Amino acid sequence: MDISHIEHVGIAVPDLKEAIAFYENTLGLKCFAIEEVEDQKVRTAFFKVGQTKIELLEGTSPESAISKFIANNGGRGGIQHIAFAIEDGVANALAEVEGKGCRLIDKAPRKGAEGLNIAFLHPKSTCGTLIELCEDPNK
Amino acid sequence: MDISHIEHVGIAVPDLKEAIAFYENTLGLKCFAIEEVEDQKVRTAFFKVGQTKIELLEGTSPESAISKFIANNGGRGGIQHIAFAIEDGVANALAEVEGKGCRLIDKAPRKGAEGLNIAFLHPKSTCGTLIELCEDPNK
Repeated sequence: MDISHIEHVGIAVPDLKEAIAFYENTLGLKCFAIEEVEDQKVRTAFFKVGQTKIELLEGTSPESAISKFIANNGGRGGIQHIAFAIEDGVANALAEVEGKGCRLIDKAPRKGAEGLNIAFLHPKSTCGTLIELCEDPNK
Repeated sequence: MDISHIEHVGIAVPDLKEAIAFYENTLGLKCFAIEEVEDQKVRTAFFKVGQTKIELLEGTSPESAISKFIANNGGRGGIQHIAFAIEDGVANALAEVEGKGCRLIDKAPRKGAEGLNIAFLHPKSTCGTLIELCEDPNK
């Protein structure tokens, strides 16, 4: 598997509007896109920081993974996942890590925010961290 | 405040040796340094991923912030903080964000791993995320 860079860092926030205001007004970053991903029940806001994006995530339903993360974290936000950009394809990477005994959340790539092909590894196999693999199908 | 990139992502792990093995053998990344930071009661392992480092952190005492993070997370690891590289100096950035009402953990920069000048913002002011600001004093 060829990881080129960190594609994004996913940060769960209880209130997206308030979080965008903090990242823009206090940190001086610029939100360049807001997107709702219906099948994941999240609303996201993106910021570019060098090579990597910050993806702020607000749950749009109590069943969303983001809402559950925040509920398990005492109602507070926090960093929910890290996403690696895979140069040689997510499907290849999944086959490779599964062959090494890694448990997968997604057995095959699916569509995520920004039209990327994505898949998650299970935190039980990654020392606790939710890790996403992604590739841009237009590259 | 001028943020150029994400300097590192800090990931708490219950067992550093096991985590290094996962990042090297499963993800194909290469650990380039291991360092103990005594005043923070942590042992760290560094990986470079594009512009950004992954800093794996294992507590060396139950009083370490990392050990407490893991205890509060049901004994599991997870992403503990995100560190931004500040081009125009951490001291300037602290004064700026404090002037905007942001609560600080560190009122002035102090030495962190790899000889960087670092300071943390309080999660109560950042929508829940532990944010570190850092600069390389040799740049």
